[in-house]
Order: sequence, then structure tokens, then C-alpha cells
Amino acid sequence: MADKSEKTKARLPRGFADRSAEDIRAVEKMMATIRSVYELYGFEPVDQPMIEYTDALGKFLPDQDRPNEGVFSFQDDDDQWLSLRYDLTAPTARFVAENFERLPKPYRSYRSGWVFRNEKPGPGRFRQFMQFDADTIGTPGVAADAEMAMMMADVIEALGIKRGDYVIRVNNRKVLDGVLEAIGLGGDENAGRRLTVLRAIDKLDKLGPEGVKLLLGPGRWDGGKEGEGDFAKGAGLNDAQTEAVLLATARNGQAGQDSSVSANAVYQEGVGELATIEALVRAAGYGESRIAMDRSVVRGLEYYTGPVFEAELLAEIPNEDGQIVRFGSVGGGGRYDGLVSRFRGEPVPATGFSIGVSRLMTALKNLGKLDVSDVIAPVVVLVMDKDTESLGRYQKMVADLRAAGIRSEMYLGGAGMKAQLKYADRRGGPVAIIQGGDERARGELQIKDLIEGARMSAEITDNAEWRAARPAQVTVAEGELVAEVKKILAAQAEERVRGR
Amino acid sequence: MADKSEKTKARLPRGFADRSAEDIRAVEKMMATIRSVYELYGFEPVDQPMIEYTDALGKFLPDQDRPNEGVFSFQDDDDQWLSLRYDLTAPTARFVAENFERLPKPYRSYRSGWVFRNEKPGPGRFRQFMQFDADTIGTPGVAADAEMAMMMADVIEALGIKRGDYVIRVNNRKVLDGVLEAIGLGGDENAGRRLTVLRAIDKLDKLGPEGVKLLLGPGRWDGGKEGEGDFAKGAGLNDAQTEAVLLATARNGQAGQDSSVSANAVYQEGVGELATIEALVRAAGYGESRIAMDRSVVRGLEYYTGPVFEAELLAEIPNEDGQIVRFGSVGGGGRYDGLVSRFRGEPVPATGFSIGVSRLMTALKNLGKLDVSDVIAPVVVLVMDKDTESLGRYQKMVADLRAAGIRSEMYLGGAGMKAQLKYADRRGGPVAIIQGGDERARGELQIKDLIEGARMSAEITDNAEWRAARPAQVTVAEGELVAEVKKILAAQAEERVRGR
Repeated sequence: MADKSEKTKARLPRGFADRSAEDIRAVEKMMATIRSVYELYGFEPVDQPMIEYTDALGKFLPDQDRPNEGVFSFQDDDDQWLSLRYDLTAPTARFVAENFERLPKPYRSYRSGWVFRNEKPGPGRFRQFMQFDADTIGTPGVAADAEMAMMMADVIEALGIKRGDYVIRVNNRKVLDGVLEAIGLGGDENAGRRLTVLRAIDKLDKLGPEGVKLLLGPGRWDGGKEGEGDFAKGAGLNDAQTEAVLLATARNGQAGQDSSVSANAVYQEGVGELATIEALVRAAGYGESRIAMDRSVVRGLEYYTGPVFEAELLAEIPNEDGQIVRFGSVGGGGRYDGLVSRFRGEPVPATGFSIGVSRLMTALKNLGKLDVSDVIAPVVVLVMDKDTESLGRYQKMVADLRAAGIRSEMYLGGAGMKAQLKYADRRGGPVAIIQGGDERARGELQIKDLIEGARMSAEITDNAEWRAARPAQVTVAEGELVAEVKKILAAQAEERVRGR
Repeated sequence: MADKSEKTKARLPRGFADRSAEDIRAVEKMMATIRSVYELYGFEPVDQPMIEYTDALGKFLPDQDRPNEGVFSFQDDDDQWLSLRYDLTAPTARFVAENFERLPKPYRSYRSGWVFRNEKPGPGRFRQFMQFDADTIGTPGVAADAEMAMMMADVIEALGIKRGDYVIRVNNRKVLDGVLEAIGLGGDENAGRRLTVLRAIDKLDKLGPEGVKLLLGPGRWDGGKEGEGDFAKGAGLNDAQTEAVLLATARNGQAGQDSSVSANAVYQEGVGELATIEALVRAAGYGESRIAMDRSVVRGLEYYTGPVFEAELLAEIPNEDGQIVRFGSVGGGGRYDGLVSRFRGEPVPATGFSIGVSRLMTALKNLGKLDVSDVIAPVVVLVMDKDTESLGRYQKMVADLRAAGIRSEMYLGGAGMKAQLKYADRRGGPVAIIQGGDERARGELQIKDLIEGARMSAEITDNAEWRAARPAQVTVAEGELVAEVKKILAAQAEERVRGR
């Protein structure tokens, strides 16, 4: 036994969390649905380990300017740097590049798993979280991108979200890239400024147009006022340039660009691809309320090269503070033509979509779409006598119940009858089995209906009346145990359906 | 596009592996079965993150003598040390200690997940692998240990392993502890030597009795002969002490111990607990062929304090080299009364069991118990015309098939018809849909039965005959697509059942 003064403190590092039974069950249920849609679309499961060579992961995190900032890294015993993956896309690119010859092409695959970000945790912002991705690798055709958007719409509807309560927004990075080229921000020497523009636009929801304008122009103080918080350097655009960028990324913005922009080849390519995607999804029966073309979507990740998508829940959901808010983005993705190529030295175009599992689960739970109350707690067999022979007898009862498929357990602690019933109650157990010496002598046992008992005890206020009624408790012959418990559980199930 | 000379090498660090669709599906199937048994026993899911404070994990790895050897560790930005978990037990202990007041006690929980060992990888030895654990925390009663053994027997039978093809072996650390105390190895000052004894016994299968004797005594050269490999220091026991240890850990050994051992209180406690466990499992109907008391089981982990278990598959299975071998251990566990206590400064007894997921999955696959061939590959809609309007039409066909629950995809690459059929074949697709301009003009499409086609092409050797027969291909009106594909898939399913 550890000395109390020397004991280790039981605590989790910041940004990490344990998961409850309810959350685990809700996620399982949700993932099974997502998986069934991915499978329906012909995608195959495949997954990668959580640790990769740091150079294989690349440096593509949003909002990180220093190399490997945001990533958990450590050196292997041969001095090579390893990192925990920060998303599922980079390891997928490594996997496909490594196994390129033997994979069918285009290669459709899906995977779910934990990813890690070594960054400042905040409310609802974790350093370990789960993603569920689908990717199509090996085709430049935007039909693959159109399919991603449709699949995400199907996923969200399969999860019980009604049409009109969500939208998949689609845009194309080439549109903004073309604008930036047309206003003089093309070329490798402006890569840093282009990234600043991208991240500024991605913050429109958070900062509003004035904040974004500052980030596009001279820069912005984090706190919103001069001197408050850190200063974020801007992209240094002049007013005309800023105007062109804001016009290109207005929600339905297309008109009003001057001729130098509208004549730009990259811009035209982007607009053309968007039109193709729109035609394909409409032909397959997906209307504007499900899949919308939206120039304001840019996504913060550097590695996207073409179409980008975002899945947004429009349903209004109570947040942690009880306020009713639009839930917002639950996933996104896009085309990343450079990620596999950088391993292969040949073009390997690719597109994919990533669902933020915890975030989507939270939304679905709040909307009542992930009911896991059909999991019945175990029947508890009480331990009235503690000698080995009696324990063996209780153990046999539990074994018989389990053999009949009834979830059950023998009480394993050292407490008395009252505490044992309290335990059964705390577990939410539906039934308790009691056999003391007297019952044993008569070859009988008592079965307590804990659900009915709780209901009656709420109704019967008089203690004497309670004792007289001995509600919800039956005495049966030992051999009747399984049949009687089955009967009670069936009655409880019926009551649940009736929704009493 | 990356310059070929600058490209990053796509490779995994040693000891890490990607998982195939087949393995992922097999593991899913197996885990669902294990979960259903754990649930039946009244256990609840809960899980912990993969990163913990290093001190919270403790230093309990088998075969590691230096602190944190074997663990992936890194410093947080507040300089505190973090580690990737090396098993599921240490994080469980932290979780229960941290949430002790609000948990029902005894607390039954289960969890599955990846764990990490920073050690030398070898064949079948990975640095990331999956475990599936169940634990009962908060009771000293060996009824909890007996239940673990029974639950593991039920898990293995639920997975399709016949009685007689597996055994759960049970022992008690106190038996060996009592012997060591009786022969003069008690006390804190001998903790290191006791650990050396433990690890020596745990290697009996690997090294044989002579190797173990050397480790109990003067020490042993890794290579088996003097000067070969590293020298492992022994426990320094004399002949009589070695004899007592070997006697205590002989498979059915009990007799023959001298009176100083048999009078030892700890030894007696261990023997008594084993007798109670045996009585409990026998009372519940588990015979010796399912749960055997076996003094040779010690388990290599330092933290076990009482009963220990091991699940062994007796079935003979082909190994990687095609040799028929006993598969051996697929999981184990035991009582770890000190792990939660070290956080709480009060006794919190606990017991648990861990299944090695990949190892068990490999065994089940080799035994043909994890058939995942019921997953049907997608129907492939070929792309004969590449204009947007045609793509939209193909896309609509796929959407209609999916709406009918038929797994299907539109070919997304850029290849011609022959290569597209090859792709469908490579995917194992059951059916291909073809509509070129002529068919389109007639409002028709062709449906190819790829399974029947492959069979017939194997039977028809003459090319002219093949052309004449146009086997396994029908032309139908566009509106008949879904109904006709359903018909073909149903016929294929029937053929599979018949096992042609």
C-alpha cells in the first residue's frame, strides 16, 4: 500500500478526455451508419498506424507557421523523427504511394481513427480526437469530387438529419488561386501571402468581414483592439486587391470581377469545374438545398488544390450554455493532388472528405438522433450468504440467466443487502434476485422488479401501505428463475414502448 | 509536382503496419462478439485517451529494467513528461482512481484500443497493437477472478472455438510469493531477485527447464552458449531454492514441498484462493477442460498480486511457415490490487483480463472462424462517354442502385472499356453496367454478370464459341436496371450458398 503522502496524482494531461459508456455507444452507432453509406458507395476499409515518420506526414497543419508545431514528435532509437498523425489524409497518402502498384485505381477507401494535435486545448477543443474519412485516389476527374459531396449528403441523411437541416457547400480553390494570380499574388515568392489570405478567409465566420479585411491588409490584434493579444501579420493587400478577394469569396459571388480576373485561366478552370460538379450532382437528383455551390468555402488546410467541401448542420441546437445556435461544420474535405505525388514524383490526383466524429456525435445527441437507451442494464443477483457453496449457487443462477441471453451479474462487493439493492439501482438494473437461507431451504427465490418497484414507491407515499403491498416482488421456485425474469423483462420492454 | 530527386520516401517506421480491408472486417466481427459477451456479464464500455502523464502510467512493463524503457515518451510544453499508453490497465487504474466517488462499486468495465511499446520489433511483434480488456475494480473477493476466467471461456466459445480446443489456466501469485518468502527471498531488499524469478518462470515455454534453471541460478547467455549474445544475470538461487521454485511452478505441482513452504501463510492463502476459484467455476458448470488450475502460470507483469489467468488455444494451426503448431496464449490477466491504490492511498483491489486482438484474430482466421466473404464488392457502372451529360446519366444509374441498397460505383478513372472491365474484375465486382451511344439511343443498357462470365470463360475454350454465346450478358430497357441487377445478385447469392 502506497503511503498517502507519496501517492501519485490521478489526472489527465490538458486536452485529453475519458469517454463514457453513453458516448462510446453513441459513436459506435453513428460510425456503423457512416460505414454502411461508405460501403454502399463502393469504398473499402483500410487503416494506418498512429505513428509515422515525421517527414512522411509533411507540414500541412492549419495555422501553424513553424515546422512540426502542432504535432507530437519524438526520436526513434536510430535518431529518425517520428510523429503522431495529425489527420488521416497524410498517412493515407503515404500508404497509397507505398502500395501504388498493387492497388486498384482509382482507389476508394475509408478509415476512422484517433488523430493528435499538440496545440493549446480549449472548450470543445481536444488534443486527441476522432476522424472518419473517405478518399478516392488516382483520378483527376471532378466526378470523384461530385461523388464525395453526394456521399456526405447521404451520410448525413442516413444519420437522421432531415433535408433542409443540413447543406454540403462546394467551392474550388482554383477560383481564389486565379483571383490571386490576377491581382499579382502568383508565383512561389508569394506562397506565404497566399496562405495568409486563405487563412483569413477561413476565419470569416469567426472574425466577421472587418476582421478578415484587417488580416488581408495590414494585420490584426488577436484581442480585436490595438495592443490586445498578439498581433497577426496581414497579407498586405491594398484596397483594390482586398476588394477582389472579398468579391471572389462572397457566398454567391461571381459577378463584378474585372476582366483581368475573369480572363485568368486558373480562375476559369475553377469556375468550369464547379459547373461540372453542379451538373453531375443535379443529374443524380441532389438539389440546391442539399448540395450548394458556395464561393465562401475555402478550408484552412494548405494542401487542397481544387474542389473543397464543407458539411454544415443548419438545424438549431442547444449549445453547452443552453443557447440555441446553428451547429455549423461537422466535416469537410477537398482535392489534394500534391500529397501522394510528393512521394511518387508523378501526378497522383486525389480527393477526400473527413468527418469530425465527436462533433457530429454531439450534434446528433443534442438532436435526439442517437438514442442508446435500448441498452438494458444487468439483472443483479444479490449475495446474501458469503460462503463458497452459496457463492457457487448464486454464480450458477447468473450462468443460467446468461445462457438464456439475459445480461446479468452476481454482486461482487462485500456490502449488505440494502447497499446491494442500492448498487443495483445505481447500475439501472431492471431486476434483482434474492435468495437467503430461508428461501434456499424452501427451494425458492425472490425476484424484485426494480423498475416497477421504483414507480410504485413514487406513487405509494405511506410506508405501511408500502410494506403491505410488497410491490413488484414475486417468490418463485428455483427452477422458475429464468422464465420469470424473462417475463418481467418483457413486461418492462412493453412499458417502455408504450412510453409510460 | 515534386521533382523526382527530391521526393519523400513512402515508408513506415519499423514495427508498425497498415491493416487490410479483410483484417479490419475480421477484427470488427470478432470484437462485436467479444463485446456481446462482456455486455452479457454486465460490463460497461469506457475508454481512456492514448496519452497519459508518464508517472500515472507507472513502470510496470515486462522485461524492462530501466525506467520508461519500452515506452514512447515526450515532454509537454510545461515540461511534464507524457507517454503513449503501453497497456489498457494502467490508464484504467488512473481513470478509476480519478472518478472513484461517482462510479458504482464494484465497477465492471471494458475497453478496446491500441497500445504502444517502444521496443525492438520482430516477426509478429509490433510496436502498436490492439488489446480488448475487461476489469472489475473495487472488490477483493476471488469470485471476481473466477468470473473473469468464466467470461474468457465464454468469449472463446462465442468466437467458435470448440470445447477441448482451448483452456483457461488459473494460478495465484501468492503461491510463488509464499514459496519465495519461505526460502528466504521475502522483504523489500529481495524485490529485484523475486522479479528475476518471475520472469524466468514466465520463459519456461521459450527456454525450457534448463534455461530457466540458469536464470534462477547464476544467469544465462542469450544465445544459449557461453559468450553468445548478452548475459542475463540470474536470481542467484542455490540448488535447494531452485528446486522449491520449480516444484511450486510445475503444472500440477503441489505435493513435495517441505514443511517450511506448506506452513507459509501467504502460500496457504494462495492455495486457499485457488480452491475457492475452482469451487466457484465448477459450481457454475465449467469443467477442468475449460478452466484448469495450473501452477505453471505466472505472467510476466510485475503488478499482479493474486490470481493470474491465461487463455490458451490448444487447436493446432498452421503458422506462417506452414508448420502445424499449437497456437498458444491469446490473452491473460490477473489481480492487480496495487495499481489503483497507488493513486488513492487506500486499498482498491482490482482484477482484469486482456485479449491480444491481432493474435486472436490471426488464430481465428487460420481456423476459418472469421469468414468475411459475405461482403459483396460493388457493381461497377462503366463510363463509355465522358461528356458531362453522359457522366450525369451514369451517376444517376449509380444513385438509383444505391437507393435500392445495392453497393455500386461509377468508374472514376480515365481508362477505356477493356481497362474498366479489368478494374471491375480486380475489385471483385459482381456486375458491370454498360451504356454506349447506341444503347443510349435505343433507351437500353447492357448488364454483365461478371461472376457467371468468369465461370463460363473458364469453361468455353473456343474464342468463336465465346463470342457466339455472349455469355452472362443481358440487354434491358433503362428502367429495368435496378430490378435486373437485383435478379442477378440474388442468383449469385444462391450459387454461393450452394457452394459451387
